[in-house]
Amino acid sequence: MTSQAVKIGICGLGTVGSGTFNVLGRNAEAIAARAQSSIEVVHVGARRDNPDCDLGATRVSRDVFEVARDPDVQILVELIGGTTVAKDLVEEALRNGKHVVTANKALIAEFGNELFALAKDHQAVICYEAAVAGGIPIIKALREGLAGNRIEWLAGIINGTGNFILSEMRDKGRDFADVLAEAQALGYAEADPTFDVEGIDAAHKLVILASLAFGMPLRFSSVYTEGITRLTPQDVEYAEELGYRIKHLGVAKQSKAGIELRVHPTLIPEARLLANVNGVKNAVLVEGDAVGPTLYYGAGAGAEPTASAVVADIVDLARELSAGQSFRVPSLGFADECLNDLPVVPMAEVVTPWYLRMVAEDKPGVLSAIATIFSNEGISIEALIQKAPAEGETRVPLIVLTNRAMQGSVDKAVSAIEALDSISGEVARIRVEVLDG
Amino acid sequence: MTSQAVKIGICGLGTVGSGTFNVLGRNAEAIAARAQSSIEVVHVGARRDNPDCDLGATRVSRDVFEVARDPDVQILVELIGGTTVAKDLVEEALRNGKHVVTANKALIAEFGNELFALAKDHQAVICYEAAVAGGIPIIKALREGLAGNRIEWLAGIINGTGNFILSEMRDKGRDFADVLAEAQALGYAEADPTFDVEGIDAAHKLVILASLAFGMPLRFSSVYTEGITRLTPQDVEYAEELGYRIKHLGVAKQSKAGIELRVHPTLIPEARLLANVNGVKNAVLVEGDAVGPTLYYGAGAGAEPTASAVVADIVDLARELSAGQSFRVPSLGFADECLNDLPVVPMAEVVTPWYLRMVAEDKPGVLSAIATIFSNEGISIEALIQKAPAEGETRVPLIVLTNRAMQGSVDKAVSAIEALDSISGEVARIRVEVLDG
Repeated sequence: MTSQAVKIGICGLGTVGSGTFNVLGRNAEAIAARAQSSIEVVHVGARRDNPDCDLGATRVSRDVFEVARDPDVQILVELIGGTTVAKDLVEEALRNGKHVVTANKALIAEFGNELFALAKDHQAVICYEAAVAGGIPIIKALREGLAGNRIEWLAGIINGTGNFILSEMRDKGRDFADVLAEAQALGYAEADPTFDVEGIDAAHKLVILASLAFGMPLRFSSVYTEGITRLTPQDVEYAEELGYRIKHLGVAKQSKAGIELRVHPTLIPEARLLANVNGVKNAVLVEGDAVGPTLYYGAGAGAEPTASAVVADIVDLARELSAGQSFRVPSLGFADECLNDLPVVPMAEVVTPWYLRMVAEDKPGVLSAIATIFSNEGISIEALIQKAPAEGETRVPLIVLTNRAMQGSVDKAVSAIEALDSISGEVARIRVEVLDG
Repeated sequence: MTSQAVKIGICGLGTVGSGTFNVLGRNAEAIAARAQSSIEVVHVGARRDNPDCDLGATRVSRDVFEVARDPDVQILVELIGGTTVAKDLVEEALRNGKHVVTANKALIAEFGNELFALAKDHQAVICYEAAVAGGIPIIKALREGLAGNRIEWLAGIINGTGNFILSEMRDKGRDFADVLAEAQALGYAEADPTFDVEGIDAAHKLVILASLAFGMPLRFSSVYTEGITRLTPQDVEYAEELGYRIKHLGVAKQSKAGIELRVHPTLIPEARLLANVNGVKNAVLVEGDAVGPTLYYGAGAGAEPTASAVVADIVDLARELSAGQSFRVPSLGFADECLNDLPVVPMAEVVTPWYLRMVAEDKPGVLSAIATIFSNEGISIEALIQKAPAEGETRVPLIVLTNRAMQGSVDKAVSAIEALDSISGEVARIRVEVLDG
């Protein structure tokens, strides 16, 4: 090893912080061989110790800002989470000329644009591989590995909690609330599960992926977000009968009209690899014009998988510091002056096939009335399935699979169908993605 | 864009060469935005033009060595293939201080150690993302994205031709020779398919992956290589009945005894993503101690998927050249002085479960004789299935699935079984990998 140690400070000693400290210690020799310099944790900032983590003689401060002001620290690793203290801390570190590594998806998605600008002003960089899909090196794949491609679209299972719930609903025919309670008991879901099940966490990650894919500033407020709370075991079962699985996807797509940015439950054909990603795992499918489809799969959360991405960023920075520079890759993969604030396509104009489920009176004329409504909106039907009525029941579930249709037209058709006397209640609706490039 | 154009020379204008030229032209704007400098092809070396490629006013030499000697060329892209002229060309380029990008797996696997040393002597680098798994950025994942991990094992479908043949055998119950002929007609297999179906191409790629994963010099001559030519539709079908698919895997595994390096047909559980990678696609599953399993999937060959990886390397180099240096990542991911020539485990000592198929007389005592042989070798049996005899046939196929057993013991058991009077012919044998981390 020719160069001297790279000195880092870790702020936050929760799951990911202690995981990072432990991985750096356990794999120190291999990491130094890869980084061509050893990585030394010289300062830890944490409100309290973590019993999973033996800090030894490492300097510890209860005030994380001490780490940001420590002249010995070259790289500050922000693992405290949230967007208040974390933002102040990252800003303080950058102002002091330190590079930053963070796993904080909310911070990057909501404040990345300004933080990247601040970093540039101070000749520092912010690395955030761990912010999306945990240990899967998807940021690196988009910023570097696929740099020769025009990215056409990407679709990802980027929230492990949601995917665990959907996998359980399918495997065991259980309903949403039931599985959510189990996920909470297992520690896969938070006591307040809103961030996960309403798609906010996925939206944070999606907006980062989209900016990297298409070279646009981060636009968190533009993401359409729909959760999985209204999915029923019936939908899971009927999707299966039609040859599909339901996954909670983040989808970003480039078209002439702009960029689609959306998180929602999605039917995908069962033969696709994404359809077979189960449990808490994450996967991102990326379609490039040259490479075609590529997929990246792994653990999207957890102490050591996330630490794996944090350490990869530290090694990346250490390699650059050893080589005497640190501006090799722009923050969002494209030179700042080339970022293009592409318009986000309104959801009413987004075109996908649709799965629709409704409850209809089992009598002549109903199907024809429904078919007429679709036809009037220019929507063609791929499949229409009437299930057998339950015993003593005169109403039947009716499933419609449409061809590709603009959401605005589907909205109108659904309103007209819901207004029919022979239809009870609301029409359940789920988008379909074929994902065949 | 602040920096001046990076000037490259492309040698070889076959499928990948023309794909690279075309992708660089088509995506020039986005590539320049990502690289923070434009990429200019200043010289093409090719024995003949390619009608798929409009070279415009680009300088063309029929002698590729002209490109290696062109003082304007900063990066030489070697896409002529083979290990004779290509090796001389790369050496000449390095001696002239040029960086090299290559898609040549044979060249790297067989001569990488000496070429990397030569590059270092001349302060140049050799990039080879395209040498393994085409457009999948797996080299980058191993060298950079997973740099915090101790890699425990990896397993890959790294030959598209072989995977196409196995996928067709399974889907259509066809036999090997029949599908091979079709693959040749479709252009997926060469007229001489030896490199693909005997596993030599996969062995080239595996040895590169293993060196990157474990920090060892390239040891092509140490790879155990077994092809897919002896697989029968019966094996595919019986594997399926047992819940497995047969894939041609490259496996590299780290243990106390050293490194296992092997390419062979393998039964893998059908629920694994790798089992569901079909057709000409490639995928590599990597198990790291921190991240757990991660998988990388995409096109392993073809003009533009391979070009995608070549251009990624060019962008990587351009970013480093713009930043004023070019030694960020060591050739094999680990500092040269830290490379460790780990021993390769002899195949007789490799432990896996096994699938064995034999033809036995359908009479009392046969099963017990076989069970005794396994027991004597300390091999426990997970499943033993006797198929029904064909009409008028007194012999029956017998399938044995063993638990984990050392190959040396299995060899002895198989010899003893083949020596039984009640057994006809040879015992067919295929390793099993559970791939569950």
